[in-house]
Amino acid sequence: MTEYVQPFEAGDRDQKDLLGGKGANLAEMSRMGLPVPPGFTITTEACRAFLERGAVPPELPVQVRSAMLRLENRLGKRLGDRHDPLLVSVRSGAKFSMPGMMETVLNVGLNDESVLGLTEASDNERFAFDSYRRLLQMFGRTVLGIDGDLFSAAFDDQKARRGVADDVDLDADDMRALVDAYKQIIKDESGTTFPQNPSDQLYACIEAVFASWNTPRARVYRRRERIPDSLGTAVNVCTMVFGNLGSDSGTGVAFTRDPASGAAGAYGDYLPNAQGEDVVAGIRNTLSLEEMRELDETSYDDLQRVIRLLEAHYRDLCDIEFTVERGKLWMLQTRVGKRTAPAAYRIATQLVDERVITMDEALSRVNGDQLAQLMFQQFDPGAERTLLTKAMGASPGAAVGTIVLDPHRAVERAKHGPVILVRKETNPDDLEGMIASAGILTSRGGKTSHAAVVARGMGRTCVVGADTLDVDDDNGRITCDGITLEEGDTICIDGTTGEVFSGSVPVVPSPVMRYLTEGLEAAREEADESAETLVTAVDRLLRHADDVRRLRVRANADTADDGSRARTLGAQGIGLCRTEHMFLGDRRPLIEAVILADTAEQLKTALDTLLPLQRADFEQLLASMDGDPVTIRLIDPPLHEFLPDRTELSVKVAVARERGEVDENDVRLLEAIERLHESNPMLGLRGVRLGIVVPGLFGMQVRAVAEAAAARIKAGGTPRAEIMIPLVGSVMELHLIRQQVGHVVAEVAETEGVELDIPIGTMIELPRSALTSYRVADEADFFSFGTNDLTQTTWGFSRDDVEAAFFAAYLEQGVFTVSPFESIDGDGVGRLVRIAAEEGRATKPDLKLGVCGEHGGDPLSVHFFHQVGLDYVSCSPFRVPVARLEAGRAAVSDG
Amino acid sequence: MTEYVQPFEAGDRDQKDLLGGKGANLAEMSRMGLPVPPGFTITTEACRAFLERGAVPPELPVQVRSAMLRLENRLGKRLGDRHDPLLVSVRSGAKFSMPGMMETVLNVGLNDESVLGLTEASDNERFAFDSYRRLLQMFGRTVLGIDGDLFSAAFDDQKARRGVADDVDLDADDMRALVDAYKQIIKDESGTTFPQNPSDQLYACIEAVFASWNTPRARVYRRRERIPDSLGTAVNVCTMVFGNLGSDSGTGVAFTRDPASGAAGAYGDYLPNAQGEDVVAGIRNTLSLEEMRELDETSYDDLQRVIRLLEAHYRDLCDIEFTVERGKLWMLQTRVGKRTAPAAYRIATQLVDERVITMDEALSRVNGDQLAQLMFQQFDPGAERTLLTKAMGASPGAAVGTIVLDPHRAVERAKHGPVILVRKETNPDDLEGMIASAGILTSRGGKTSHAAVVARGMGRTCVVGADTLDVDDDNGRITCDGITLEEGDTICIDGTTGEVFSGSVPVVPSPVMRYLTEGLEAAREEADESAETLVTAVDRLLRHADDVRRLRVRANADTADDGSRARTLGAQGIGLCRTEHMFLGDRRPLIEAVILADTAEQLKTALDTLLPLQRADFEQLLASMDGDPVTIRLIDPPLHEFLPDRTELSVKVAVARERGEVDENDVRLLEAIERLHESNPMLGLRGVRLGIVVPGLFGMQVRAVAEAAAARIKAGGTPRAEIMIPLVGSVMELHLIRQQVGHVVAEVAETEGVELDIPIGTMIELPRSALTSYRVADEADFFSFGTNDLTQTTWGFSRDDVEAAFFAAYLEQGVFTVSPFESIDGDGVGRLVRIAAEEGRATKPDLKLGVCGEHGGDPLSVHFFHQVGLDYVSCSPFRVPVARLEAGRAAVSDG
Repeated sequence: MTEYVQPFEAGDRDQKDLLGGKGANLAEMSRMGLPVPPGFTITTEACRAFLERGAVPPELPVQVRSAMLRLENRLGKRLGDRHDPLLVSVRSGAKFSMPGMMETVLNVGLNDESVLGLTEASDNERFAFDSYRRLLQMFGRTVLGIDGDLFSAAFDDQKARRGVADDVDLDADDMRALVDAYKQIIKDESGTTFPQNPSDQLYACIEAVFASWNTPRARVYRRRERIPDSLGTAVNVCTMVFGNLGSDSGTGVAFTRDPASGAAGAYGDYLPNAQGEDVVAGIRNTLSLEEMRELDETSYDDLQRVIRLLEAHYRDLCDIEFTVERGKLWMLQTRVGKRTAPAAYRIATQLVDERVITMDEALSRVNGDQLAQLMFQQFDPGAERTLLTKAMGASPGAAVGTIVLDPHRAVERAKHGPVILVRKETNPDDLEGMIASAGILTSRGGKTSHAAVVARGMGRTCVVGADTLDVDDDNGRITCDGITLEEGDTICIDGTTGEVFSGSVPVVPSPVMRYLTEGLEAAREEADESAETLVTAVDRLLRHADDVRRLRVRANADTADDGSRARTLGAQGIGLCRTEHMFLGDRRPLIEAVILADTAEQLKTALDTLLPLQRADFEQLLASMDGDPVTIRLIDPPLHEFLPDRTELSVKVAVARERGEVDENDVRLLEAIERLHESNPMLGLRGVRLGIVVPGLFGMQVRAVAEAAAARIKAGGTPRAEIMIPLVGSVMELHLIRQQVGHVVAEVAETEGVELDIPIGTMIELPRSALTSYRVADEADFFSFGTNDLTQTTWGFSRDDVEAAFFAAYLEQGVFTVSPFESIDGDGVGRLVRIAAEEGRATKPDLKLGVCGEHGGDPLSVHFFHQVGLDYVSCSPFRVPVARLEAGRAAVSDG
Repeated sequence: MTEYVQPFEAGDRDQKDLLGGKGANLAEMSRMGLPVPPGFTITTEACRAFLERGAVPPELPVQVRSAMLRLENRLGKRLGDRHDPLLVSVRSGAKFSMPGMMETVLNVGLNDESVLGLTEASDNERFAFDSYRRLLQMFGRTVLGIDGDLFSAAFDDQKARRGVADDVDLDADDMRALVDAYKQIIKDESGTTFPQNPSDQLYACIEAVFASWNTPRARVYRRRERIPDSLGTAVNVCTMVFGNLGSDSGTGVAFTRDPASGAAGAYGDYLPNAQGEDVVAGIRNTLSLEEMRELDETSYDDLQRVIRLLEAHYRDLCDIEFTVERGKLWMLQTRVGKRTAPAAYRIATQLVDERVITMDEALSRVNGDQLAQLMFQQFDPGAERTLLTKAMGASPGAAVGTIVLDPHRAVERAKHGPVILVRKETNPDDLEGMIASAGILTSRGGKTSHAAVVARGMGRTCVVGADTLDVDDDNGRITCDGITLEEGDTICIDGTTGEVFSGSVPVVPSPVMRYLTEGLEAAREEADESAETLVTAVDRLLRHADDVRRLRVRANADTADDGSRARTLGAQGIGLCRTEHMFLGDRRPLIEAVILADTAEQLKTALDTLLPLQRADFEQLLASMDGDPVTIRLIDPPLHEFLPDRTELSVKVAVARERGEVDENDVRLLEAIERLHESNPMLGLRGVRLGIVVPGLFGMQVRAVAEAAAARIKAGGTPRAEIMIPLVGSVMELHLIRQQVGHVVAEVAETEGVELDIPIGTMIELPRSALTSYRVADEADFFSFGTNDLTQTTWGFSRDDVEAAFFAAYLEQGVFTVSPFESIDGDGVGRLVRIAAEEGRATKPDLKLGVCGEHGGDPLSVHFFHQVGLDYVSCSPFRVPVARLEAGRAAVSDG
């Protein structure tokens, strides 16, 4: 028979799976000998059994009854007794803290009889009936699902009736009256009377906790936070202690360090003569811990002792809930506490300095998302600002711009200065407007809404779900709490905090960014003390990550500027230079000439014109990364990407014909576009296919690379160019191109009289090359995983087309927990990466393996690539520090 | 030390890898005690060593010398001896017969000295010098690469000088003169003198054979025939025997049965007093074997005895080369002979009746390609015809139509009757013209040319490489051997034989097709004897295939007509009904209404209108396959496929605006098209994604299926509908849809009061669903592999876009040996199929597995699917017999 019930003292903090976070920590504190009110935990197993069969498992009631009996014996009190009754709290507690679930019912065990017992025992009638009406209210709301406002309204009525403003001015009779009123509400709303049997109360609470696991809000939350539906929640049944028995009682929350700044020393709030819910409700102003000391030094000292014990024991910032009952301290909850990004870095290094943890552990306590947050420009902390509203930060950053309510106007106005697109919600039609905007603000939707998903995907700052905001499209204005702003007015949004400010707030580069780009000394010079401790902490942790990581970090960079920037940020080479980016702008006519060439001669002339330009590009790029590898990918996209849009030009030519003003050049261009038109260009003539079909194209690029490398050698440099062939599906393609490439390199080496060692590798970005990697490896010096394209083909959707069209629906319905373009899909795409890494290396043990998709800068993905055993990741320059940190974290979590 | 040389008697026919086909069969005949002139084979290993190091392996000359010594000792003759010299032939012989390689040099060992010895020994000076000049000619042409016409011209000069018309009228002096003339040609052309040393002759021949393995023509041939480049060729050195020593000598070829009709009894040609090359050259008319009997009964009887022995030994049709030297029969070559498709079927069953082979073996002797050939309509065998030219059959069928030289005109004229598109060669611009044409004829290119590849892909009849044809685009006519045809004139092309006829030739359905559609009795009734034996043979083999095969065969069918036709052809169900095909034609406005719906209500109304139409479709379809499974795939393509083309409509609207005649409906349509526009629709909002995003669409289809099934049950039928969800990438998608589907089916079952058992399965057509099949299987009753889409995503190319753009180049350069859309790519796509089959069944052992891509009707692919262990293949109705046969062949080759 499964044992579903476990007394606190029987467990420990490692049992979060079974006892939930709250239960495991109550158990741990009990084991530590800290003053935890006696109680027991009903395990997550019981919840899973309940969810499976739709009813509590048959053995559970018996087990709960015997646990209650043991509790009663231990305390010498009985549940529902009419003399000094035992009362318990019932709290949910899943492995991960989870809003949307039933939280707490206090004072279980009170009824019309035992309330008299409590009166007697506490010698405080008002307290007893206040406790009873609280039970009725919580039970009604959370167990029976009755609208909480009904109880609040009855309460306010009572105050009005008595003509008092403050709750404490209600007396025992008022509380009695409220008990009756609440019972009536329960009867009216639920059709049943409040259960007088204390066991019935208890079981109802337990079932309600179990059932609350599957409320829609809880499900949505789990999906967003990637928490498996299968975990279930535990239930903690705990002896009640009372902070509202007078001035020698109270309740509070504390942190062992400041969770906002990370500063050492306990930090908290205390409310005398109150129950926990009063602290949360913010009815009265709380006291600081210093103020508590003045009030009740003994309890304060006890609390400080407990805080020291807990931090030493947990070796991390803890947060605590406690109650003082008539001068006696009780611990109701603890857990490792949440903290801000700066606090995380400061605390981690402080604990190292206090010799509590090692640097490896410190590294595991911070993460790349926090670092990315610290890198964003920030609103000047000293500047004045007017908060308009606070909603959900969906994509970080600090954006300032003028309000635009329409996506088309956004595109127009963005030409004259930054705009913030403000919408009720966004849809695929808004895409261009979103691209043009500095930030996006919506009044509806959550973190998985269209706006949030798309903005994150494109790196735009975004705040969503500002539900106090009224977006009035017809009149071109927005209203929020009585303040009206017109289109064209300036606002600011903070994508990290979710804050929205009216007017302009100056932004400043973050001290961490200054440190990353200018070095520690420079950053320290300009920093105040807070900034200094932060950059020092970041520096120490980042350097430690560099020491321990096995993955090297390169950057994706197409220009020497990008290359230099990347190197500053710590890149150890360039993992991807997209040569096609060098064909844009002024050079577009030159590549057009390549595409429009009718004869082999025209083609050669066009390529010859491009050669010196490419060579100069490569020379600069190699100089910017001298001594480190620079992987140059030969031209990848379909050629028509360099030509005008087919539909637009067709319309232009047709209209011109209509007017008799045809431009022959347009006609010629249109013919070429028609010839090159493909229904699915992503799946068409591109990458290595171009290299095989268009004679001389790859050859020109390779010659430019080889000549650039030769020039660098002659100039005394150490160029480490690598040539990468895109879109290979079959070893034969690579074989054919490798022959060409080798030939050109050898020719240049001979002509220039230098030795050229230019490794030739391939992108693995098609399922087929991954599946046949054991052969492809024969012809490749390295593999670089193009996880973007690999995601597109493995899932069969193109990023451009589908992120807008259905990703929001897919996230909402739980097909994805996160976009597979954001974090690598381990089961599908990741399996291919693993196959290719293993089988490629089986063929060629010294095959170099890297990744150059955007996943290279994503924390989760970096851990995956570490586990698969890649040699390096490559990401955009600004993600390089994040990748360095996460690579270090992956290495220490391996050990 | 590797032994590179092996005497004939040491090997056997199983050593084709080592000895080549010719060498292995010479060895086999030697072992059988048949009269083979003594000799030895230089192995393919020697060739591979040569190809690797660019020179013969150092031990080879010694080994050849000692083999020659053994030969000389055995025969008591010496190579180059001035008395009765030993002469040898040198022939190439790879594992697979291969044009483009050096074939044969005869009379090796003759020089200015030994020619006198041969004169003496044969007592025939003319013969000896004729033999010498033949050696010079063959050596010059094939070893030294001299243009053969130079030798022919000198020969003709000599005849002219002597005023004779026939070769035999040249005497010994003429031959002597020719020897001198040929030596001079060799000297003039190659710059070297003909080697007088017989060993030098021999080594030069051996090296020439090795080197000829890599001639461009040989390489192209291997690529086309999927012969690995790594095999190499063997060289056979064989004692010369002479068929040109007088009227008691001769040479011939024979088949143990008629390779054209399959009729029993030896069949062949004999040429008295001649050498083998004379038979091939067709200089004189050959005699039939009956006529040979009259001339030389002993040799004839010997030959018949050998033929009987060979057929009994090889248990199949053999072809034979033989020579009679002064009344003694010598076997020069044998092999299992090529045969026509009808012959293959007849011979296979004859051999069964003769108890030579089993039915299983008979089945392995025929194939699906032959059956497909026999199913095509044919030019009426009795009808008159005028052969214009004979080129290469690239895509089978018999097509009649008017000549069109331009693809755009082809589209126009095809509206008025069938056309044959005639081009020098085709390119992607011709695509629409090719689609519109009944057949395609080109004057250039081979079986891997653009025309050939594309035509095969689309099932158009095609003849390529008609190099005697002059295509005169400017004057709109074609000329061939002096005959000129204008555009608009009628021609016929036979894509099987490569024949081109001028004028019209009536076509008739093939007897095999009549048998397949009307049954054996009906087919026999109308058939002549030849047709009768053929259909009987086909019937026996096809029935045997049905008995032994493990794969079931279904058809892809979208209408009841298709369904009935498929059932007639042996389909055991429908594996794929594409429901979107039911939205075309008249119903297009209805699906347009679905797409254009602005409100949920409009959408519902539009779907409600479609429901009864779909229900009626499904009811008929289920009736056509009553009792067998009918797999109905829910709507798959992107919705914009049902709307007009974006560019065309944009132009139309823009031009209309210009003229002030805007149609509001067009504007509205264009807006919808813009909204739905995707850069890569193949990778966009389609398949299951539509089901999740467009509410009610899948539900309507499922309701139609369920109601149709219910109606069939009430009508006393046995409907076996199955619902298939396309484009699933994640088990979660299937889970969500399965819930919807199950709900609708249950509702219909309840309303209609019938029991509905409708399995729900998924297409596996994305790499991700294959890679996560162990999970997908949890939600699927069956998997159906959509190998078309799976090929597209695995390789990352779309069939439409790339077949035209670069497949020809890829075939030419050996990236593919065959289009992966034609035969499944086992290494890439096939590996995914295997993974999904294995892991899906590991999760759910009774998971039904099938394939519904076009590969289901491709012979090679059918074998693959058999090996992987699928339950069924589904293909177009007309491929059903081919799939049945190949499934049977796969089963017997397994055993």
